[in-house]
Amino acid sequence: MPPINLGIVGVGKIVRDQHLPSIAKSAEFNLVATASRHGTVDGVPAYKSIEEMLDAVPSVDAVSLCMPPQYRFEAAHTALSAGKHVFLEKPPGATLSEVADLQATAAAKGVSLFASWHSRYAPAVEPAKAFLASTQIKSVQVIWKEDVRHWHPNQAWIWQAGGLGVFDPGINALSIVTHILPRSAFITAATLEFPENCDAPIAAELHFKDAANMPIHAVFDWRQTGKQTWDIVAETEAGTMVLAEGGAKLSINGELVFSEPEQEYPALYCRFAEIIKSGTSDVDIAPLRHVADAFLLGKRKVVEAFFD
Amino acid sequence: MPPINLGIVGVGKIVRDQHLPSIAKSAEFNLVATASRHGTVDGVPAYKSIEEMLDAVPSVDAVSLCMPPQYRFEAAHTALSAGKHVFLEKPPGATLSEVADLQATAAAKGVSLFASWHSRYAPAVEPAKAFLASTQIKSVQVIWKEDVRHWHPNQAWIWQAGGLGVFDPGINALSIVTHILPRSAFITAATLEFPENCDAPIAAELHFKDAANMPIHAVFDWRQTGKQTWDIVAETEAGTMVLAEGGAKLSINGELVFSEPEQEYPALYCRFAEIIKSGTSDVDIAPLRHVADAFLLGKRKVVEAFFD
Repeated sequence: MPPINLGIVGVGKIVRDQHLPSIAKSAEFNLVATASRHGTVDGVPAYKSIEEMLDAVPSVDAVSLCMPPQYRFEAAHTALSAGKHVFLEKPPGATLSEVADLQATAAAKGVSLFASWHSRYAPAVEPAKAFLASTQIKSVQVIWKEDVRHWHPNQAWIWQAGGLGVFDPGINALSIVTHILPRSAFITAATLEFPENCDAPIAAELHFKDAANMPIHAVFDWRQTGKQTWDIVAETEAGTMVLAEGGAKLSINGELVFSEPEQEYPALYCRFAEIIKSGTSDVDIAPLRHVADAFLLGKRKVVEAFFD
Repeated sequence: MPPINLGIVGVGKIVRDQHLPSIAKSAEFNLVATASRHGTVDGVPAYKSIEEMLDAVPSVDAVSLCMPPQYRFEAAHTALSAGKHVFLEKPPGATLSEVADLQATAAAKGVSLFASWHSRYAPAVEPAKAFLASTQIKSVQVIWKEDVRHWHPNQAWIWQAGGLGVFDPGINALSIVTHILPRSAFITAATLEFPENCDAPIAAELHFKDAANMPIHAVFDWRQTGKQTWDIVAETEAGTMVLAEGGAKLSINGELVFSEPEQEYPALYCRFAEIIKSGTSDVDIAPLRHVADAFLLGKRKVVEAFFD
């Protein structure tokens, strides 16, 4: 199969940090064009909009959509309708309903839709899943605490309604949890803390259970200075499992059993190529559904104003 | 086929007003037991919990779950796991994720799950759908304004987190809109008004569009005294369509073209019997998904405290 001609839409930080190096190393994709209001990539033809790009470069087979989720539907619908395969950065959309609509469009056009969850490809995630499948889980604790000023400086969109706030990193935790647990779970109570000047939460506490009444407790906080924490801790019949550093390291009963360098985005592009070749789609809405459920069910608490 | 032995769980206002008269008239269902903390039905064996009821009356084939949505999952899971068919009052759950879990359980157990939307069975809904399919729609306006003090007196659960607030009636409008429109739509902006002493909204304004950019504007308000309004207005190539009084009356260009007495709950029980006979389920999550999307995407506005 010849390489897949790829266009990137929305050239920002995540594209420069992750997508471009992964595509450069991939034998399966050729970056042939970009579309972005401001960003460009050296040596690659640049257009201002996806419509312009698709008109000018009809050889584009697939597009990666990396703009903020509030603006993703229209570009995705345009690309799918033009018969292009679509890679959606996480979260796959601003609403669940629009993602359902895109799934239907992709199916109708016979093209592949990939709702990517990069954290699921963190190196220790599969070993953690295998460990949990081998034992009985008693409880799960998710701690996702980071400093928003360090990780998301001046990204106004994350504080707007629909920008998800602390669920932007928190959904990474949920994408791992929904992948490694043997049974599906659902939120039973939640508290969302909104800075008085923001339309998105800066912190959240979630209580889940599954049909077997196994409790999951998650704490997301964007006000963490000093040590940053992205840990999932499971108490099991076989002892305590810690999946640490966003899925990079796995420890069982205090002993490090798995640690490998991070390769999330190269793995995402492998997966994208795979579903294109097999003519399928990969859209698991569960992480975004939990976030919507948290907003639906959660108590709102107003906290101190936030200034970048 | 002999009649289906039915148990009702959660005997409250909606059961007395709607379920009991419909079941009494139905040749397809026999009410054989109830489970409720407080409510009972004259002449029908009454139990305090669904577990007690299922233990005591093993001949129960199916259950109708009519308690507040925050308490529905556990009963539904218990019933499905025991091989009983389940009728869920609207909304089908407190979260989307738990409904997805129930769907999987029903499929695994080979029983029927019915997520009922009674307003879809309002008499003029099908004629409205047929009219809209015959023309091009330019825009849709949904106006759902009622007096919460009149319709939901002293129902504390509707004001709690997860109780949905004004979306409790609003979801009826959404269940009709999602049924009668030819294409799926999604929310692009929303404002939710929360009384300063409540965890659920008293009013909401929603903007939707569909993939063809057709706009839908919805206003839900629980502070309406005097005339109550439950109208869906569509501007079309064939003129103005008004589906009024919650789906009871259809007018085209000011002329009443369809009006029949309301028969929603008898129709729901017909449908429940039909899916049990055919061994299928009927779970359309779209109305609740729009509500979750509204909470996810919506701006929150704090308004005057509400006292019943």
